[in-house]
Amino acid sequence: MCRWIAYQGEPIFLDTLVAEPAHSLIAQSLHAAECKAATNGDGFGVGWYGERDVPGLYRETRPAWSDENLRNLCAQVKSRLFFAHVRSSTGPATARANCHPFAVGNTMFMHNGQIGGYPAVKRRLEALIADDLYAHRAGSTDSEALFLTALTNGLTDDPIGAVARTLLDVQTLMRAASVSEPLRFAAATTDGTCIHAFRWASDGRAPSLYWRQTPRNLLIVSEPLDGERARWREVPQGCALIAMPGEPVRLAPIEMQQRRAA
Amino acid sequence: MCRWIAYQGEPIFLDTLVAEPAHSLIAQSLHAAECKAATNGDGFGVGWYGERDVPGLYRETRPAWSDENLRNLCAQVKSRLFFAHVRSSTGPATARANCHPFAVGNTMFMHNGQIGGYPAVKRRLEALIADDLYAHRAGSTDSEALFLTALTNGLTDDPIGAVARTLLDVQTLMRAASVSEPLRFAAATTDGTCIHAFRWASDGRAPSLYWRQTPRNLLIVSEPLDGERARWREVPQGCALIAMPGEPVRLAPIEMQQRRAA
Amino acid sequence: MCRWIAYQGEPIFLDTLVAEPAHSLIAQSLHAAECKAATNGDGFGVGWYGERDVPGLYRETRPAWSDENLRNLCAQVKSRLFFAHVRSSTGPATARANCHPFAVGNTMFMHNGQIGGYPAVKRRLEALIADDLYAHRAGSTDSEALFLTALTNGLTDDPIGAVARTLLDVQTLMRAASVSEPLRFAAATTDGTCIHAFRWASDGRAPSLYWRQTPRNLLIVSEPLDGERARWREVPQGCALIAMPGEPVRLAPIEMQQRRAA
Amino acid sequence: MCRWIAYQGEPIFLDTLVAEPAHSLIAQSLHAAECKAATNGDGFGVGWYGERDVPGLYRETRPAWSDENLRNLCAQVKSRLFFAHVRSSTGPATARANCHPFAVGNTMFMHNGQIGGYPAVKRRLEALIADDLYAHRAGSTDSEALFLTALTNGLTDDPIGAVARTLLDVQTLMRAASVSEPLRFAAATTDGTCIHAFRWASDGRAPSLYWRQTPRNLLIVSEPLDGERARWREVPQGCALIAMPGEPVRLAPIEMQQRRAA
Repeated sequence: MCRWIAYQGEPIFLDTLVAEPAHSLIAQSLHAAECKAATNGDGFGVGWYGERDVPGLYRETRPAWSDENLRNLCAQVKSRLFFAHVRSSTGPATARANCHPFAVGNTMFMHNGQIGGYPAVKRRLEALIADDLYAHRAGSTDSEALFLTALTNGLTDDPIGAVARTLLDVQTLMRAASVSEPLRFAAATTDGTCIHAFRWASDGRAPSLYWRQTPRNLLIVSEPLDGERARWREVPQGCALIAMPGEPVRLAPIEMQQRRAA
Repeated sequence: MCRWIAYQGEPIFLDTLVAEPAHSLIAQSLHAAECKAATNGDGFGVGWYGERDVPGLYRETRPAWSDENLRNLCAQVKSRLFFAHVRSSTGPATARANCHPFAVGNTMFMHNGQIGGYPAVKRRLEALIADDLYAHRAGSTDSEALFLTALTNGLTDDPIGAVARTLLDVQTLMRAASVSEPLRFAAATTDGTCIHAFRWASDGRAPSLYWRQTPRNLLIVSEPLDGERARWREVPQGCALIAMPGEPVRLAPIEMQQRRAA
Repeated sequence: MCRWIAYQGEPIFLDTLVAEPAHSLIAQSLHAAECKAATNGDGFGVGWYGERDVPGLYRETRPAWSDENLRNLCAQVKSRLFFAHVRSSTGPATARANCHPFAVGNTMFMHNGQIGGYPAVKRRLEALIADDLYAHRAGSTDSEALFLTALTNGLTDDPIGAVARTLLDVQTLMRAASVSEPLRFAAATTDGTCIHAFRWASDGRAPSLYWRQTPRNLLIVSEPLDGERARWREVPQGCALIAMPGEPVRLAPIEMQQRRAA
Repeated sequence: MCRWIAYQGEPIFLDTLVAEPAHSLIAQSLHAAECKAATNGDGFGVGWYGERDVPGLYRETRPAWSDENLRNLCAQVKSRLFFAHVRSSTGPATARANCHPFAVGNTMFMHNGQIGGYPAVKRRLEALIADDLYAHRAGSTDSEALFLTALTNGLTDDPIGAVARTLLDVQTLMRAASVSEPLRFAAATTDGTCIHAFRWASDGRAPSLYWRQTPRNLLIVSEPLDGERARWREVPQGCALIAMPGEPVRLAPIEMQQRRAA
């Protein structure tokens, strides 16, 4: 179980959210509130869009709370769309390649959750990844495999459909492997313009996910960055949140029966 | 505030204490019980005596809980005397040189506590370190400075006297700098044969320190490694514990007025 | 292209070979002589057998030449059989999981060489790994995949046959992917008692490999650790070296047509 | 001996110089040409000025050639003034705090060279650092001590005078300690607007230093980034180079007798 934030709006310095708020993401790396693992110290990452099409990535194996480079970087870099993530491993090693966000081309992805019984399905899950995308498999997490499978399933063209297909694929593999643990998924993906966020679980206990929109920006977070609960809205379970720049957020159900259009 | 253990007795694999107990040191790195900072994730270290006079050291900046090398090493290395330490920084950066234990020649030292107002006295404290010992100053912690000052004050010949003189020296510097925060000190030192442990604080609130002795070995710990509280004895505040191999532990007061013999 | 050493014989401190010789492995990490890449600074590892069946492993992403922990460990640990390896990446990231040696149970493996066109065959190579062994796939190197495939092919029972089958398997995949670059392989494996070393290449340009045996021990090395060339013998290309403890080394051809016995 | 580059001019992506040229700084980390140590693999750093007064810093202990974060960062960050440095240690450990550039407030500094007999003068050199600046001493290098001493000597107001006084101070300490090795110094400092670079040695063998100015920008480098030697001019030994934005570079002698004005 991890913690993450996604930002879209007027360009701001990353530290505005990553370091400054009372319950900033860095603070959550040491003391998360709504998460089984209070400590999210198994690496971290930030990914941001600047002048280039592809995002910048800074991922490191240290805990976020003690990384000078993270504080320095977040104090300098301004972005209109960025992701930040602190990791609490559910098994795989602490390694840069296992830290979120992941990026392929201009698409970025991060995740909080878990594939129950992952070791039993890992190999078959990887088999679902297209050949050209498999070259991007650098680590050993379920999250990276979910991303590459979702890309294979059409994430860049049809984010909600691709995620639904991927969750269905994984559930099928889990069932075939007689896995009884749940599949839980709170994730965000973006092409650098639009953000899609997802909250879903096979057992109805999806990881927490909140959002807050003002005329100036949108925040999507694992848990609120401040004590003003009234300002934050919960993403309903089973829903995707669609965030086009400058438009009000829309919610849509994640239709698990959805099949790729012919 | 950190957590540490010291072992003396029949040679055992380090993992017997570092990794295996319910409340092992690795477990304490994530969830310490008797410590202001529950998370001790700012690096760690083990130091052990084997066939050579000087101890082996393995110190790393990662949290102990996620370091495969630590688990591997502790599963292989057997020792009759070792220290292990998980760090929670009170300011200085997460760096190998700031991790405990510290060693000069065959003398090893580790510490849990804090010099209140350390930035205000750091420089004058370093000025107390003898020239030849100053070459060993590699990091920026108060703990390393305390060790090198204690060595300057005669730690290898008269451990209790040297620690008393050092604590007095530091208090004098703190007073001169008008520091109001306390000086707290729970430390252990060894020459590879005898262990001296210390529990002391200027405000009567010394960090916790326990010991347990059986015919086969002695354990000195920041907090018990298991739930059997009755088996652990608290080191009284203001006391040094003296552990000669194969002898019952002795306690002695840390006499703060003690002056170096002429 | 990497550099490695394997030792079998009377227990010695690891630093006897890793750190002390004029052209020690640590020296080779900075200035290798017989290697396309003079700098082997993309991580390193040591694996040794002590009192337990499984080997100890210390693998790190830093260059070997600047790692205090490596020097400290090698000064303390004595072993009758150990491997040490300095890495020069042919592509995959600098990560602990990509450092040699690799171990599964009591079997250890390290490698110098390269699968030409690896990205084109990576996925199909991984498909050859048995399900239960695939759980040990933690990194992304060709070397780890070669090890796990060789284990699948019977490495623990029939080392030379398993390596021959693996090389044949890989060549088949390379041919199917129209790879024109060569497959080169200088590797060692052990069960903690016997060492098998291999020197082979599809283009007759296998990485260098030497050995030196005295009544007291056996050394197998990528390049001699000293200037006394006359004392070192070259492992012939296409050959396996078989080292049973206390016996003279034997050489055997790597029979590429070898098929697993029914 | 290290390698560095300093840039001033139209904002460019850092990778334009750090990663892209044939003989880029990343290339020099593996194969420097004009340097005793061809390998500069003991950490690296970049420091750049953006929208804030203080520079951003990214310093890491890995070799520059294998750090994905460095490539990512340099592909995203644009700056009108930045420093980049690859380190080859002359003794002190590989640690972030020992990596260049160093920064205090808006002043940045990096260095290539060495104080001969540094261990013999380290302590007395540190004694020259002003109390408030000493709090910034985080590592153990001669370079960081030179920077903090130069700041104490007035670096922000009178860069050339402060450097001259500092070099004189260090020479005095070296002489008092009977050090016979030379003092060599190729450094750059900036306040975010103006760059001062220095090339000096006590034995007339200062580290190499070049510059190239066009109407669009200025480059100061340890060694040329390309093979077009004619385009690069050598900074004469004993000289400071003064670079005001948009003005032609000026050279001035480093007057060693210079005393601080009363």
